[in-house]
Amino acid sequence: MGTGVLKRYKDLLPITPSTPIFSLGEGETPLITAPRLAEKIGCKELYFKFEGCNPTGSFKDRGMVVAVAKAMEEGSKRIICASTGNTSASAAAYGAYCGLESWVVVPKGNIAMGKLAQALMYGTRVIAIEGNFDEALSIVRALVKSSPITLVNSVNPYRIEGQKTAAFEIVDELGKAPDMLCIPVGNAGNITAYWRGFVQYCKLGKSGSTPMMLGFEAAGAAPIVEGRVIESPQTVASAIRIGNPASWQGAVQARDESGGIIDSVTDEEILESYHTLASDVGVFGEPASAASLAGLFKLARGGTMDLSSKSVVCVVTGMGLKDPDTALKTRADIIETPAELEAVRNALGL
Amino acid sequence: MGTGVLKRYKDLLPITPSTPIFSLGEGETPLITAPRLAEKIGCKELYFKFEGCNPTGSFKDRGMVVAVAKAMEEGSKRIICASTGNTSASAAAYGAYCGLESWVVVPKGNIAMGKLAQALMYGTRVIAIEGNFDEALSIVRALVKSSPITLVNSVNPYRIEGQKTAAFEIVDELGKAPDMLCIPVGNAGNITAYWRGFVQYCKLGKSGSTPMMLGFEAAGAAPIVEGRVIESPQTVASAIRIGNPASWQGAVQARDESGGIIDSVTDEEILESYHTLASDVGVFGEPASAASLAGLFKLARGGTMDLSSKSVVCVVTGMGLKDPDTALKTRADIIETPAELEAVRNALGL
Repeated sequence: MGTGVLKRYKDLLPITPSTPIFSLGEGETPLITAPRLAEKIGCKELYFKFEGCNPTGSFKDRGMVVAVAKAMEEGSKRIICASTGNTSASAAAYGAYCGLESWVVVPKGNIAMGKLAQALMYGTRVIAIEGNFDEALSIVRALVKSSPITLVNSVNPYRIEGQKTAAFEIVDELGKAPDMLCIPVGNAGNITAYWRGFVQYCKLGKSGSTPMMLGFEAAGAAPIVEGRVIESPQTVASAIRIGNPASWQGAVQARDESGGIIDSVTDEEILESYHTLASDVGVFGEPASAASLAGLFKLARGGTMDLSSKSVVCVVTGMGLKDPDTALKTRADIIETPAELEAVRNALGL
Repeated sequence: MGTGVLKRYKDLLPITPSTPIFSLGEGETPLITAPRLAEKIGCKELYFKFEGCNPTGSFKDRGMVVAVAKAMEEGSKRIICASTGNTSASAAAYGAYCGLESWVVVPKGNIAMGKLAQALMYGTRVIAIEGNFDEALSIVRALVKSSPITLVNSVNPYRIEGQKTAAFEIVDELGKAPDMLCIPVGNAGNITAYWRGFVQYCKLGKSGSTPMMLGFEAAGAAPIVEGRVIESPQTVASAIRIGNPASWQGAVQARDESGGIIDSVTDEEILESYHTLASDVGVFGEPASAASLAGLFKLARGGTMDLSSKSVVCVVTGMGLKDPDTALKTRADIIETPAELEAVRNALGL
């Protein structure tokens, strides 16, 4: 209950006696069971790890709290990141809490409305470049080489360290590792972090196994699946609209060591799962988050893997409220009536 | 970690052996300490109970899970509510999870964009009336008298029961009740619920005292402060734009029994605290949520109460992402540059 990952997983994180311990309440997110959907898909158990319940509405908070704590420990006064939106919101929030100056570089016109609102409200300075995420990341990487600013993208190793805690929580809650983990892949830091977390917990004896890692890129932004950098990535799932993932190798390692796959799902499949997740499970994730479920549906349809004995966890990386435009664009059936009992009764067909 | 309020507080809620137990991960929200702001205000300890971390982004989920569980227990297949947005999002989500049909009646044009997106995504039927919240509530109250639908507004007593759990959590986490609780007042169900929760926990010996309850209405929608129904309530804080609160008596009772106050804060004060909360504490609440902090600032300025020895909890009722329009309207300083290192460096003044 707001203990925070620094305190809860102190012994498993790179914390020293001089690391400041603080929290906005990140972590301890719900693991929601979905028995009806499990039956429909044909797997034994199905859970959604809903990272939208983090304080800035995405999984980024787990790693950001560690990265910012370490920046403080090192005496840094300024943090910077490139972002498709979630990282910038998280950096801005923890920067605000700790009294650090924060700067974010985002692709102009390609960041969901809610995420932009967050960065501005938390008081960060927002630079929108006429380019994509990959270019933004190159720029900030170059920038920190010559200026005393801490880079808090997931190339900062403390980010990945903190994000491991989501894997710890899943094992803590289930009492074992799931058989399979479905996860969206964009910059690939999260699949890298989950895999390290599962491996570490298994080595510590907290679980007897590690899950098969199933990562899903968007079809228009699938560099790992296609084995090449995508110059102009395109997908409705803006959080994973990335053509040259910083943690490419980490993702490949997670896939290979776990005997898993990295596959792609189309925007149509993503949007279908986006709606299913909300209307069948009551979980409103952002479009990119639905890549997990879309991938699981694809796998089930493919029929190459027997899911009937499997426990599956799908990671829902961020809150649907981050991107209200996509929601309203794809669903817009409001019935308007006068403020009268009979009118409402008729509208409801009663 | 997603245990949910039905399971965690089973013995303190109206649960029977036939009540279904389920959860979307409501409750266990962060209690965030804000030492710098405490010093500025002049109180001893200051905490924010951030209810935006609930699965639909507001405190409503705590009561909704109980109301929907009881509806299921009673064999109901349909739920309905009037809403300024948060209740409808919550009803729609739990309805979706449980496979119930859900309907919501909202004031047309007066519901924040994110909340509308939520209700539609969760698959509820949305009726927008040409009237305000109070009229919407009258209509649904009349409707359920003649049709077999469960009303899940806070006039449903199970809603208040579930919302009490936020008070339990505060005491569980602090190890005692705070000296003061600041809370926004709209339909007044939440202040009623917190007070009952604190009283119940005190009677059970979980705390040695109960807090002074400090409720804050928006100045343009302040029926309790003015002692009269407000026909056309007006405020930027849409979640508390209510002129005839259903739990009016509960709020008055909480105030009087606790030796507290119910006061009003202007839209200007609300928006100022809305920004302070985000940029100083890293907590992005919706505008209505900032009424708590605005009220505390007003109290501190007034100087009639010595806060220097007091521990204060401010309730942040909902996620700022619910209302991106207000955020973007009041903050819009984005710097645009070409995708070049030097351009970004110059924009940052490095």
